[in-house]
Order: sequence, then structure tokens, then C-alpha cells
Amino acid sequence: MSHEELDQLRAKLDDKNMELLKLLNERGNLVKKIGEVKSKAGTKRFDPVRERKMLDLIAEENEGPFETTTLQHLFKQVFKASLELMGEDEQKTLLV
Amino acid sequence: MSHEELDQLRAKLDDKNMELLKLLNERGNLVKKIGEVKSKAGTKRFDPVRERKMLDLIAEENEGPFETTTLQHLFKQVFKASLELMGEDEQKTLLV
Repeated sequence: MSHEELDQLRAKLDDKNMELLKLLNERGNLVKKIGEVKSKAGTKRFDPVRERKMLDLIAEENEGPFETTTLQHLFKQVFKASLELMGEDEQKTLLV
Repeated sequence: MSHEELDQLRAKLDDKNMELLKLLNERGNLVKKIGEVKSKAGTKRFDPVRERKMLDLIAEENEGPFETTTLQHLFKQVFKASLELMGEDEQKTLLV
């Protein structure tokens, strides 16, 4: 019984992982677009004020079970990876 | 023009952040349930084989723009936070 329950929960978790993967990549594409707009405008990619606002919004909207600090840590990792995504594109542009 | 475009893209990014927040917490609740089932069955929470399978699935399904290694790094952080979530509950149970 509990093994069947575990298998069902794991299948749901796999679905969530795939949703998460899709969402992260969708977010990545958005960040790339933002990077392009900023590049044309000559604005710096990294914006600490904007990053702070996003982290504050996470704190406001968090309903758990994760602690806000844990989520903010995870989001910071996502922000970091996204900045690298923008940097990489910039390099590619320079090579063309 | 580009400032308006930037504002629109940022609004979309905020939406994606909120979707991400919701999804991470939904995933967190699922992981907690898995922890409860495992606890009743006396099974260890951390399952490296299962974790490896989830990471392999991410590699198979990744369509970019993020590199697979970047996504796997992010997911490992999520797995780590999820394990802590299970551990915390276990402690709470011991206190009751």
C-alpha cells in the first residue's frame, strides 16, 4: 500500500520537476530578451535594486512550506544563472 | 519605446517568478508527503539513485536556453532544500 502511494507521489514529483524545468527555461528566454533590450539601450545587465524588489516580493507572497530565506536563496541561484545566460549571449554577439 | 518594452518584459518576469514560487512550494508539499510515507515505512529520506534518475530526466528533456549542467545545479539546490524540509518535519514530530 505505502509503496504504491510512494510511486504515485513520485510520479507527481516527476511532473512537478518537468514543470519546473519548463518554467525555468521560459524564464531564461525572458531574461535573454531583457538582456537584448538592455544591450540596445546600453544599460547594465545586473540591477541590484530590481533584484532586491523581486526578493521582497517573494517574501510577501510566500505561503510555505519552504522558509522565505530558503526560497530567496534558490531564487538568487536562478538570478545568477540568468545573468550568466545574458553574459554568454553578449560574448556570442562579439564573436559574430 | 525600449523602456516600455523593458517594463512589459519585467512584468512578465515577475509573473514567472510568482509561478516559480508557487511551483516550488507545491513541490515542497509533495516532498513532505513523500517524507511522511517514507517515515511510516522506515525508509531513508535521501535516495541517491532516485536523485540521479531525476537529474538524468532533466538532461533528456532540457530544451534550453539554460545549459543542462546549470539546470542540474539548480535542481540539486532544490533537492537539498527539500531534504531539509523533510528533516525539519521529523524534528517537529519528535517534539510533539
